[in-house]
Amino acid sequence: MKIITSIAELRAWRKTLLVAGETLAFVPTMGNLHEGHLALVAAARQHARRVVVSIFVNPLQFGQGEDYLTYPRTFDEDCAKLEAAGVDVVFHPSVEELYPRTEQRYKVEPPAIQDELCGKFRPGHFRGVATVVTKLFNIVQSEYAMFGKKDYQQLKVIEGFVADLDFPVTIVPVDTGRADDGLALSSRNGYLTPEERAEAPRLYRNLKQIESSLKAGDSDFVKLTETARADLENHGWRVDYVEIRTAQTLDHARPGDKALVVLAAARLGKPRLIDNLEVSL
Amino acid sequence: MKIITSIAELRAWRKTLLVAGETLAFVPTMGNLHEGHLALVAAARQHARRVVVSIFVNPLQFGQGEDYLTYPRTFDEDCAKLEAAGVDVVFHPSVEELYPRTEQRYKVEPPAIQDELCGKFRPGHFRGVATVVTKLFNIVQSEYAMFGKKDYQQLKVIEGFVADLDFPVTIVPVDTGRADDGLALSSRNGYLTPEERAEAPRLYRNLKQIESSLKAGDSDFVKLTETARADLENHGWRVDYVEIRTAQTLDHARPGDKALVVLAAARLGKPRLIDNLEVSL
Repeated sequence: MKIITSIAELRAWRKTLLVAGETLAFVPTMGNLHEGHLALVAAARQHARRVVVSIFVNPLQFGQGEDYLTYPRTFDEDCAKLEAAGVDVVFHPSVEELYPRTEQRYKVEPPAIQDELCGKFRPGHFRGVATVVTKLFNIVQSEYAMFGKKDYQQLKVIEGFVADLDFPVTIVPVDTGRADDGLALSSRNGYLTPEERAEAPRLYRNLKQIESSLKAGDSDFVKLTETARADLENHGWRVDYVEIRTAQTLDHARPGDKALVVLAAARLGKPRLIDNLEVSL
Repeated sequence: MKIITSIAELRAWRKTLLVAGETLAFVPTMGNLHEGHLALVAAARQHARRVVVSIFVNPLQFGQGEDYLTYPRTFDEDCAKLEAAGVDVVFHPSVEELYPRTEQRYKVEPPAIQDELCGKFRPGHFRGVATVVTKLFNIVQSEYAMFGKKDYQQLKVIEGFVADLDFPVTIVPVDTGRADDGLALSSRNGYLTPEERAEAPRLYRNLKQIESSLKAGDSDFVKLTETARADLENHGWRVDYVEIRTAQTLDHARPGDKALVVLAAARLGKPRLIDNLEVSL
């Protein structure tokens, strides 16, 4: 497994694949890899001959007061996992390599959805995500790129700009990895105390409860989401949102919609946890 | 020469070049081709084995009240010129092919320079340019793309987003084509009456006059540009701006700056003419 830190070297390697007629799949990550990331790598290996994983904690997508500086960085352990998983190249640029100018002047601007759901609580986050992923797509130029459904709104933003701006890459969504008790795998779970970790699966249980109610025909979306919010708040969570949206466009769901997604974000102690569940009626 | 109207077919053709190891240069145009465009084609042929020219009048870069509907469309004549010039492919998508959704939601957002110079008089223009050129770059995936210096601010915006977003294309600036009397070649010159056409070279003459003064050591930029403005207005022009900026970044020039560009935009009757002149001190 090759570790590449420069854009020029990554591009040179990519060119050798083109000459050899080998396809490439790309898994962008911020490192601190868990089984969820390895599921993305496994999916990548099913789609293409070669796999590149990027590890880059992107300052542009963190807001003031967020955990950019303390975000867990575990590069050596990450590389061991990726080598065992059969990855060909780890792309690990420095901040100076990816943002050589004092300011990132040109950005990819998402539409109003960037200010809803998680965007309401993380101003500028999705602009930062769309911009860095654009840069990475332009550097890696893979045929496929894998994104977890765990970050559902991020997946929709990426599918959106790829379609609207005609990026020559196929986005492959991958199901959320979960612990046995249902908790969605996330690097930020490492911030949880043992007590919080025991409480954490309540987020997913509430999504499952809403799914059951929806499948039973309940279409009082306000009541369903407020019930979940109350249950979480009664157990010490500070809830950012629990919402029912259309799965394709993340519009507000209306009774009669068939393809839904239930999304939630809430803080338990220090970390902010997010999760979601697609529901087909 | 092949005429291609679908994105899928263009991509399929582009793939055959990759397999054959042939390089590609791209000349994006809005059609109504003149010698200035053909100079871009000639430069393209010097840079790559194959040349693709797009002809697409992009609604996203025209403002309300601008000439989108009346912009001259001369496809058959254009194709004859391009075939004679040795072009391999003309890419001529419909508006529905390039903008299949009711709304272009995701855009490439330039920084504050988009609201200065021409951007002050054409709100949203450079956002529209950056967005459609991004789409075309992603569709064509050429190694080179040629842009005329006539649209100097556009050239700087494109160089800017290519650098900031790491697009894998080399931008090649090409000198402005001019009539014998100095008038910059432009499709919009076709809007001029014979009397206006005779008056039109005054714009370039004023740029040359400023160049002479700068080279003679005059650094009173306000006096130089106001003198030019007055000369134009005294001869029936409505002047949007005459400005002296730094050539690399389009910042306001200060005495002592060495690489300058003098830019002007003004209306003579119906059409709005723009021109510029790089000045190295």
